[in-house]
Amino acid sequence: MSIIGKGVILIPGNETSPINYKANSYRFRQDSHFLYYAGIDIPGLDLVIDVDKNVTILYGDEQSVEDQVWSGTRERLSVLAEKVGINEVRPRVQLIPDYASCDILTVHPYRAEHFALLQKINEHADCSVAPSLQLMKAIIAQREIKSPEEIAQMEEALHITAQMHRKVMQSAIAGKTEAILAGIATGVALANQVMTAYGIILSRNGEILHNESYDNVLKEGDLVLGDFGAESRMHYAGDITRTFPVSKQFSTQQREIYELVLEAQVKAINAVQPGRLFRDIHLQVAHIFTEGLKSLGLMQGDTESAVAEGAHALFFPHGLGHMIGLDVHDMEGLGEDYVGYDEHVSRSAQFGLAYLRMAKSLRPGHVVTVEPGLYFIPALIDQWRTEQKHTAYINYDIVDAYLGFGGVRIEDNVLVTDRGHRVLGPRIPKTARDIEALRG
Amino acid sequence: MSIIGKGVILIPGNETSPINYKANSYRFRQDSHFLYYAGIDIPGLDLVIDVDKNVTILYGDEQSVEDQVWSGTRERLSVLAEKVGINEVRPRVQLIPDYASCDILTVHPYRAEHFALLQKINEHADCSVAPSLQLMKAIIAQREIKSPEEIAQMEEALHITAQMHRKVMQSAIAGKTEAILAGIATGVALANQVMTAYGIILSRNGEILHNESYDNVLKEGDLVLGDFGAESRMHYAGDITRTFPVSKQFSTQQREIYELVLEAQVKAINAVQPGRLFRDIHLQVAHIFTEGLKSLGLMQGDTESAVAEGAHALFFPHGLGHMIGLDVHDMEGLGEDYVGYDEHVSRSAQFGLAYLRMAKSLRPGHVVTVEPGLYFIPALIDQWRTEQKHTAYINYDIVDAYLGFGGVRIEDNVLVTDRGHRVLGPRIPKTARDIEALRG
Repeated sequence: MSIIGKGVILIPGNETSPINYKANSYRFRQDSHFLYYAGIDIPGLDLVIDVDKNVTILYGDEQSVEDQVWSGTRERLSVLAEKVGINEVRPRVQLIPDYASCDILTVHPYRAEHFALLQKINEHADCSVAPSLQLMKAIIAQREIKSPEEIAQMEEALHITAQMHRKVMQSAIAGKTEAILAGIATGVALANQVMTAYGIILSRNGEILHNESYDNVLKEGDLVLGDFGAESRMHYAGDITRTFPVSKQFSTQQREIYELVLEAQVKAINAVQPGRLFRDIHLQVAHIFTEGLKSLGLMQGDTESAVAEGAHALFFPHGLGHMIGLDVHDMEGLGEDYVGYDEHVSRSAQFGLAYLRMAKSLRPGHVVTVEPGLYFIPALIDQWRTEQKHTAYINYDIVDAYLGFGGVRIEDNVLVTDRGHRVLGPRIPKTARDIEALRG
Repeated sequence: MSIIGKGVILIPGNETSPINYKANSYRFRQDSHFLYYAGIDIPGLDLVIDVDKNVTILYGDEQSVEDQVWSGTRERLSVLAEKVGINEVRPRVQLIPDYASCDILTVHPYRAEHFALLQKINEHADCSVAPSLQLMKAIIAQREIKSPEEIAQMEEALHITAQMHRKVMQSAIAGKTEAILAGIATGVALANQVMTAYGIILSRNGEILHNESYDNVLKEGDLVLGDFGAESRMHYAGDITRTFPVSKQFSTQQREIYELVLEAQVKAINAVQPGRLFRDIHLQVAHIFTEGLKSLGLMQGDTESAVAEGAHALFFPHGLGHMIGLDVHDMEGLGEDYVGYDEHVSRSAQFGLAYLRMAKSLRPGHVVTVEPGLYFIPALIDQWRTEQKHTAYINYDIVDAYLGFGGVRIEDNVLVTDRGHRVLGPRIPKTARDIEALRG
């Protein structure tokens, strides 16, 4: 209220999302802004922060007896609202008439239901509602600095996430499907009464960055990349990646790439501190990767110019990491260019670097993922080779020896503290030795 | 095409459903009509069946290299379309211009994205699109009669569903949470590379009909009601309910209610045959329940009039079952009144009977659930007692001795055959003795 000064703010809550007909829905997930400002974890609500009248209003409907027969009895909205300091509860149908002649500030919609709500309000006489950059920047300024209570939630999420990773690593043997492991990871999250924070990536094809199919059977000699995490009970995300061999030990080729990714990841974590540009840490990783890939014969030429021209992005095509909080890519819906960039740092157009979600200067209270990776992506290698891209830096003949390798990514969640950083959550095996000990 | 005769039919495919921002989405589920007519299980597609031109067109976009880097390489749409006999593939942006001056028949939308698509088409000059009752009735007439290939899919779904139920029953001991069991059930489905067919109901509070919270810890003396199932790989649903004691054996009170539900369920299954009104089987169950509840002292008075007036619905407030197929409530999105009712049978307004999703005459190829249940629902009992409802038939003093009992439901999926019926899927323990043997 004090940042916005005047006007009316609308934070739409989420509805249940239908699967194949209206009443059959996915597990409900409340909108993250709504959770942050209202904390009430049930569908069918909207929050109005009326700055002009200095009042907060929850729009929603109490349950009927019929609702209770089908869904159980919940606390009354008036009780829930009072707990979080919301001043009033009104029937949902009142929202549009109540603000018929006001301009309303809101956030970018991302669900079709939100687009429809804004359109409905705008069709109403005299009333206009639109995403407000001022509001969204104010929200980012609040949500990007995590309070101790929020950090505790993230530790809770990572506690569950660690259980998921350990159980998957212990269960992954040749002959099992990726799907069995995805089921194990999900089962651990559900057993802890929480959702997974995003679609599980769990594959011998780790080179597919957002692979969400689990059709393969694990074989001796495969690498498995597992990128998954749980939410906490209050919906803060954990986001961890580990890569491990199906065999008891890494092969020499696997170990060489693995150690290179690990070196880059540890150095990147150590570089996290207030005032540091996250983009610079990304480029430091690119530098380490290029040096390492040169020593393996995969790259060649001058490291500085290879990184400047983006040649390393054939192997490291994504960004080093992103903000994390109530959303796994925190506040991505408001626009990465506002969350991860600012007036001092703007987004590059270069392949690879363009995918960097977070680039700006780190501040105490930021939580970021640090997740470098190296991949051998057939479609991308084919394209670059055909286009003769970066032949000064890339030795395509050696690259061929790595087709079928997959990918390695290692990811932790790191809090920026007043003086440096702290890796959140319990330790999950990360060195080749620790992983082999767990697998043995 | 031959039923509709002329015009243009649009079957919109599903998009991915965002969770908390656009790129973070729930596991994709294709629309069931789209699966039935086009069979292609990827987002971002629409199917046009152009009856006038005798041609079928898939609207959708091929992958870019960037798509492949992030999501992996899939078969080209042209290849997928040819496999299922679709004549043409066109870019999605062409859909509206291609049919700018046509009236288009479609189905009821149920996702906000579908509403938005129809609206967008309708805003386009000269073009109108609307749900067509003729089309929807034609779809129901096709989809309600399951082919042998579809039955095989349903058997596959039930094969996985049976594993889920057995594992849950074997794992449920005092001290465990409902959430742990829900995690086990989901894990089995995922391990088989499929989704659960609907939100898992797994609770010691079985009296909450669509209970989807799992917060309770199981205690000795509790009953657990588990209503869940898997989809097959081609997205046909299984839908099974079992109820079992946390202790090794049912208590006397539990056993009496359980045996009554089981008796009703077995007799209802035996009544399934072509030409039989499903509503009559529902009423037969109501009759059995009323008789049984009278012998337990919970009800009294004349059975026929108690059932006619709906007094039994305090304990059996829902319908006996529903059609099942690609949707767990098959084609519910088109309207239960068209799927489960016809010109001979219309929906009752009476509490309980009004919830009956399927009432019409059974035909060979129909698959229905048979799922009677008895519940002690505090909110409903309070309301009826306060209103002095059906005091001639209900002995509210005895009802008090059952508060905290929970509920019992037993459900199987039954195919109507030429001469009678066949219970689909493998046997899952159902008699009190078999359940106790599995629990022992």
